[in-house]
Amino acid sequence: MTANRLIYLPLGGAGEIGMNAYVYGYGPKGRERLILVDLGVSFPDMDSSPGVDLILPDLKWLVDRADRLEAIFITHAHEDHIGALAHLWPRLKKPVYARKFTATIGRLKFEEAGLSPNTIQIVASRPHTVEAGPFRVQFVPVSHSIPESAALVIDTPAGRIVHSGDFKLDANPIVGEGWSDERFAAIAAETPVKALMCDSTNVFSLHAGRSESTLKVPLAEMIRGAGGMVVATTFASNVARLKTLAEAGRAADRTVCLLGRAMKKMVTAAQESGVLTDFPPTIPPEMASDVPRKNLMLIVTGSQGERRAASAQLSRGKYLGLEMKQGDTFLFSSKTIPGNEREVGKIMNAFSAMGVDVVDDSNGKYHVSGHANRPDLEHVHRLLLPDMVIPMHGEHRHLREHVRIAHEAGIAAAIAVNGTMLDITGDVPVVAEMIEAGRTYLDGTALVGAMDGVIRDRIRMALNGHVMVTVILDEGDSPLGEAWVEIMGLSATGRGNRSLSETLEGDLTEFLEAANKKLLGDDDKLDEALRRIVRQVTVEEIGKKPEVTVVVSRLMAE
Amino acid sequence: MTANRLIYLPLGGAGEIGMNAYVYGYGPKGRERLILVDLGVSFPDMDSSPGVDLILPDLKWLVDRADRLEAIFITHAHEDHIGALAHLWPRLKKPVYARKFTATIGRLKFEEAGLSPNTIQIVASRPHTVEAGPFRVQFVPVSHSIPESAALVIDTPAGRIVHSGDFKLDANPIVGEGWSDERFAAIAAETPVKALMCDSTNVFSLHAGRSESTLKVPLAEMIRGAGGMVVATTFASNVARLKTLAEAGRAADRTVCLLGRAMKKMVTAAQESGVLTDFPPTIPPEMASDVPRKNLMLIVTGSQGERRAASAQLSRGKYLGLEMKQGDTFLFSSKTIPGNEREVGKIMNAFSAMGVDVVDDSNGKYHVSGHANRPDLEHVHRLLLPDMVIPMHGEHRHLREHVRIAHEAGIAAAIAVNGTMLDITGDVPVVAEMIEAGRTYLDGTALVGAMDGVIRDRIRMALNGHVMVTVILDEGDSPLGEAWVEIMGLSATGRGNRSLSETLEGDLTEFLEAANKKLLGDDDKLDEALRRIVRQVTVEEIGKKPEVTVVVSRLMAE
Repeated sequence: MTANRLIYLPLGGAGEIGMNAYVYGYGPKGRERLILVDLGVSFPDMDSSPGVDLILPDLKWLVDRADRLEAIFITHAHEDHIGALAHLWPRLKKPVYARKFTATIGRLKFEEAGLSPNTIQIVASRPHTVEAGPFRVQFVPVSHSIPESAALVIDTPAGRIVHSGDFKLDANPIVGEGWSDERFAAIAAETPVKALMCDSTNVFSLHAGRSESTLKVPLAEMIRGAGGMVVATTFASNVARLKTLAEAGRAADRTVCLLGRAMKKMVTAAQESGVLTDFPPTIPPEMASDVPRKNLMLIVTGSQGERRAASAQLSRGKYLGLEMKQGDTFLFSSKTIPGNEREVGKIMNAFSAMGVDVVDDSNGKYHVSGHANRPDLEHVHRLLLPDMVIPMHGEHRHLREHVRIAHEAGIAAAIAVNGTMLDITGDVPVVAEMIEAGRTYLDGTALVGAMDGVIRDRIRMALNGHVMVTVILDEGDSPLGEAWVEIMGLSATGRGNRSLSETLEGDLTEFLEAANKKLLGDDDKLDEALRRIVRQVTVEEIGKKPEVTVVVSRLMAE
Repeated sequence: MTANRLIYLPLGGAGEIGMNAYVYGYGPKGRERLILVDLGVSFPDMDSSPGVDLILPDLKWLVDRADRLEAIFITHAHEDHIGALAHLWPRLKKPVYARKFTATIGRLKFEEAGLSPNTIQIVASRPHTVEAGPFRVQFVPVSHSIPESAALVIDTPAGRIVHSGDFKLDANPIVGEGWSDERFAAIAAETPVKALMCDSTNVFSLHAGRSESTLKVPLAEMIRGAGGMVVATTFASNVARLKTLAEAGRAADRTVCLLGRAMKKMVTAAQESGVLTDFPPTIPPEMASDVPRKNLMLIVTGSQGERRAASAQLSRGKYLGLEMKQGDTFLFSSKTIPGNEREVGKIMNAFSAMGVDVVDDSNGKYHVSGHANRPDLEHVHRLLLPDMVIPMHGEHRHLREHVRIAHEAGIAAAIAVNGTMLDITGDVPVVAEMIEAGRTYLDGTALVGAMDGVIRDRIRMALNGHVMVTVILDEGDSPLGEAWVEIMGLSATGRGNRSLSETLEGDLTEFLEAANKKLLGDDDKLDEALRRIVRQVTVEEIGKKPEVTVVVSRLMAE
């Protein structure tokens, strides 16, 4: 009989911040029963994934073993934890468990995707327990920047795992349950914790995190001091912040209006799931223009400079009949995620050009993070006293630093990036296997592998431009007419102000006329020869080596 | 007789940080004699300028008036002030003036471009004066993050202008002359300052700037505490920092080695121009591998994550026989410029995966900025007491904030972004005219206008992919064979796993066979019809609306 083992395998979220997907398994090697925790997306960027809609984890390993998968658990409703669920669920087809708010958001997504919303089951928090094969799973409320975020207690025959999810130590998070030391101390007291899989996002933040409840007073003060209209943006899913902003606006005697679809969706979901009961009164956007500007506060989407969100639209002009004017104030009650600085900067400058005062979080008064800082992580290590800490939800440097602080506290720890299968049956984590774990792109409605070359070709066209050559050969392989060249994304003129396409056509036609029949009869060689000439001439003319597509049409005798 | 007027016209650098180019003019309206201060570049990014080599100011306005241009003055040798000079000088062909170190760098660039280095004339600092038409120009030493940065005193018949250049208030900048209040007080005492054109980069930094000389002790301490090899990166042009780093390395008993071509070029130029006389001894890279790692310190290029610089090469593996290992330390003695976070992050994570400790400036101990902070700017306003402050070297929000603090101090001020011609003859600045001021891309060896559509096409191909259609029609406008489709940068398969190109070919061929002669005979209409089908089918198949190139070849009767 083979011994059972307990394994942990991140397929996304470890070695990056985004597209979380963590597999746990228990059973004989190669026959473990599996559960999946979270199934999120990452967001594309122009540098590495131009034109892509979403980045999803590559689930090939799990799809190949879907018969062994028992269930899917979603810790909270942030896109990097739930965003891929509706896209990839049809490949897994297993029950999904989440707390009520998370399930509400997930069900909306399932409906949009034409899937049955009831696939997502609403689970009460601990002590309620979900049985999934050899796993017994409980949802434990934690504070974060979205309602009903949960850590998971995962009991297995090999011991207890605590999967932290995204969390911070906020005893007073405005919306939902606060962080409770007692709650987690009880978990560790009940059964010793074998492994803590732990959020690493803020491991480089050296001060203890601050509570959401510290923001209302400075926000109200700022709004009270503002002359014209006040517009504030934050993540739509940060329902607590929306409430804090709205309350601060009311405290400053302003009428509050929420703008942007995501904002309304989140507040509605929070109200429907019962986590948000006392949101201040707001007016609909169509009534906002009737309120004097100095009595009005808008709370809008687009804290990351998203092109189509309300903040970007306002920076370009009118949005739903509202517009920013000289003397108004625009507040970013948010942090700019690395990589979004340029887009956010564009909006700030556009507002500046309108005479709008832009206030951001550079002084640290109008935003708090949703993740545990280093002292908070150390506190949780001490509270749970796990046999081992496995950092997740971080780039490599975050995971490494998190391992370092665990080691300093005398706790076993290991870096496991995406694709690293750890055997955690024993007292220390051991690398069992390396799995190929990659990314899948949702591009339009197609799923494209990151290594398929599709996006690489797009990047190359963006860097190098594209030259298309059309050549027609007759039945005897003789060129019929001249070569035809179309260029896209390259200077129209080369040296001496000559037309680049005409120069190319001339040189290609000259080559074709002099070429021997053997070359003209060989598709691959002809293609290669034409491509080489295009590149060489383009380098000479404009110093660029373009992508080249050659189409050779051969007329057949009729 | 028309009255003479004094004008100021930024063609780059105002409303952005980068590609500085400022024009001053004096004389009758439309016949002003002109000087140009600085001629720099900006750096491209994938979002807005993929594949572009450099971004230069569009000098059309000035080139059209080159007969009225007297001279070009370069304040310092940073690329955003001197980088476009060799590229655009042939369109201006006027004498260039700079201090010795700046001229040395400029002359190297002129030599590389096949231009005569002697065009750049070396100028001593004030009281030495360059006469350029109605202008009398003096170079005034200021401290910055490169040797021999200068402010300019520009005397005109309408009054004295101080053009700050890039500066900070550092009395002890390690290399070159320190900032001197007396020097600037004397300038204002000699002749009242009419206008101060002033660096705005750090207007949002609320604390007084710190001196370069504060870094050596903490750096030496950090290096002393490091176990393995220490590698530090900063801007190559920051010669003072190179010296501080090398001295800190020596103080920690390490042998120092400079790595990267730019590094050697800058140190050599600084030594040749006499500003750097006592750089600590260094060893050449080929000897570095003979030194025990714990006694070795490398100072390398690539603080911004540049792909081909030494730091990026070391993050990918060996560079000149040297490589990073477990227990080494890599120090970013620099700030990450907004927009470069992703590339710098990649390098940090690659080092982390090697077991290297990465130290950055998040604690503020290992880097100081080269620009004046808000209190420093306010100090300079008080020192010079100009009639007006015109902020430059900043995005719109920086210029706006700088105007605000000038107004608070009771000084006239105005925002003038690129293309805004100010008449500053009177006591307050007045907008005289708006000039079209844009960007020119150096793309390979071609200069491409930012509005030419070339780069826009590249961006579109990157976002949407590219479909090429080839159709051959015979002498009677009948289709000869089937339509041929090539796709680039799009999923190869559409719905039901069908080949996208085959689906397109089928639908296009069907259309061609059914089309009437009138349509088939009309190039534009046929092109449009084929394009529409491609887009429609591609949207149905994969949800993308691609760029489409159609080539219709018409065979002629022979």
